Amino acid sequence: MRSGPQAGDALGIRSPRVKAARQLAKRAFRERARSFLAEGPQAIREAIASEGVLTELFVTGQGRSRHPELVEQAARQGAGVHEVSGEVMAELAQTITPQGLLGVCRFVDQPLSSITSAAPRLVAVLANVRDPGNAGTVLRTADAAGADGVVFAAASVDPYNSKCVRSSAGSLFHLPVVAGQELAAAVGELRAAGLQVLAADGSAEHLLEAAGGPDLTRPSAWLFGNEAWGLPEELLALADSVVAVPIYGKAESLNLAAAAAVCLYTSARQMRTGRTLLVGE
Amino acid sequence: MRSGPQAGDALGIRSPRVKAARQLAKRAFRERARSFLAEGPQAIREAIASEGVLTELFVTGQGRSRHPELVEQAARQGAGVHEVSGEVMAELAQTITPQGLLGVCRFVDQPLSSITSAAPRLVAVLANVRDPGNAGTVLRTADAAGADGVVFAAASVDPYNSKCVRSSAGSLFHLPVVAGQELAAAVGELRAAGLQVLAADGSAEHLLEAAGGPDLTRPSAWLFGNEAWGLPEELLALADSVVAVPIYGKAESLNLAAAAAVCLYTSARQMRTGRTLLVGE
Repeated sequence: MRSGPQAGDALGIRSPRVKAARQLAKRAFRERARSFLAEGPQAIREAIASEGVLTELFVTGQGRSRHPELVEQAARQGAGVHEVSGEVMAELAQTITPQGLLGVCRFVDQPLSSITSAAPRLVAVLANVRDPGNAGTVLRTADAAGADGVVFAAASVDPYNSKCVRSSAGSLFHLPVVAGQELAAAVGELRAAGLQVLAADGSAEHLLEAAGGPDLTRPSAWLFGNEAWGLPEELLALADSVVAVPIYGKAESLNLAAAAAVCLYTSARQMRTGRTLLVGE
Repeated sequence: MRSGPQAGDALGIRSPRVKAARQLAKRAFRERARSFLAEGPQAIREAIASEGVLTELFVTGQGRSRHPELVEQAARQGAGVHEVSGEVMAELAQTITPQGLLGVCRFVDQPLSSITSAAPRLVAVLANVRDPGNAGTVLRTADAAGADGVVFAAASVDPYNSKCVRSSAGSLFHLPVVAGQELAAAVGELRAAGLQVLAADGSAEHLLEAAGGPDLTRPSAWLFGNEAWGLPEELLALADSVVAVPIYGKAESLNLAAAAAVCLYTSARQMRTGRTLLVGE
């Protein structure tokens, strides 16, 4: 199955393998193949670390000479390694500089029970987050904040969108990611697993860490909505509390990823200190 | 000077005014004219709120019918209002949907003394931040966190880059923005104004809010570097303390804008509570 590692075997742009990989830029084809593209050495390294995820690796001569260990590890795991020219790589890749490595990976999302059965303390739920860069950044931030999983719910972007994969900077491979969830059902299961449900919304009555707000030392699932729309009434109604990040200056609002960073790190810190210092009004 | 508000007067793509405005997509032309482009109703509203900033407004028929009050206010301030077709607007705008309004604005940056003379308590300094989306998001987040100014230093992106203007979501017009600073000199002046200088770097010895770190209830200037490179040794050496946002999960690092959100909001909160709860190791 594996093509030889010699430059002479380089696959052309019309090769069926290259064509099949190119199609994975589209969601419908990804869902049919249950596979997605990961670009660049960092993503390939993370994919290799999850045994059985990487199925094919496209590599340019330069990519091979810069990252020989990744090419070797991929081959050892049984991934098909295909040499391609820089031109073919440019056709395959969504980034300008994929650094000579592009992999086909099996979907890594898991059922919601993989989160709820593991005594979760911090979960991020994306509700109608359409911007793939924002979604990937929230995934990366949730990973950094020690979250137990990230749920892509309602009409959120596909986590395998190439920009989302790239923005996640490897975090897609680090923690349980759950995709395609209906929001109300997911919220019900997370609550049944002992999490309070907090919705982040700029127009909320409660400010983060102000008197009267929720106890952030408790295990929590945070709902984050589409930046432009915020969370609609019916989603806010699903939450135990709706909380705003305070705006001390003149900005109308925060970028979604920045708001999520503040909320998730506030929860992470309060769970670790076990205490709250309220910010006076 | 003002062209008439009738659709019949619409300027063509070859009109000198349209050509001059198009050139402002390039930094060299912006610096020569000391003017930049602001797109969409939110930015135009903010520009109008700063008297004398908006000098010209290009508007489509649809833009005028959706935002008649903005067109009227612009004209009342003496800005030249120019009707253009959707095609000309598409040529002028950097976004796909500028919503029919695009303005030419005078530069709004200020000297560093506008920050240092006003008893600052929180300042963000961008050092070699090249990505305009990240820079604009940090500017917006600093505004939200109540910062007293943002300094674009060293080889950072031009704050008037269209993507930076857009990502700032109006914050470019809200608080003192200082551009084109040499970093060591700026840091010296900020320290002389009573600010401790904190560098955010993922590889730092001190973790945010851990024992042994800096006192975040004190007025602070935060240095944020290019995400990929971090802060080089000679810039880290300029800081009183180097601090990392703790990584509780498997992520290698945070996105620059997310790290800045956590650092700036931690400072804002500690200054308001006047106390620190240390996160145990």
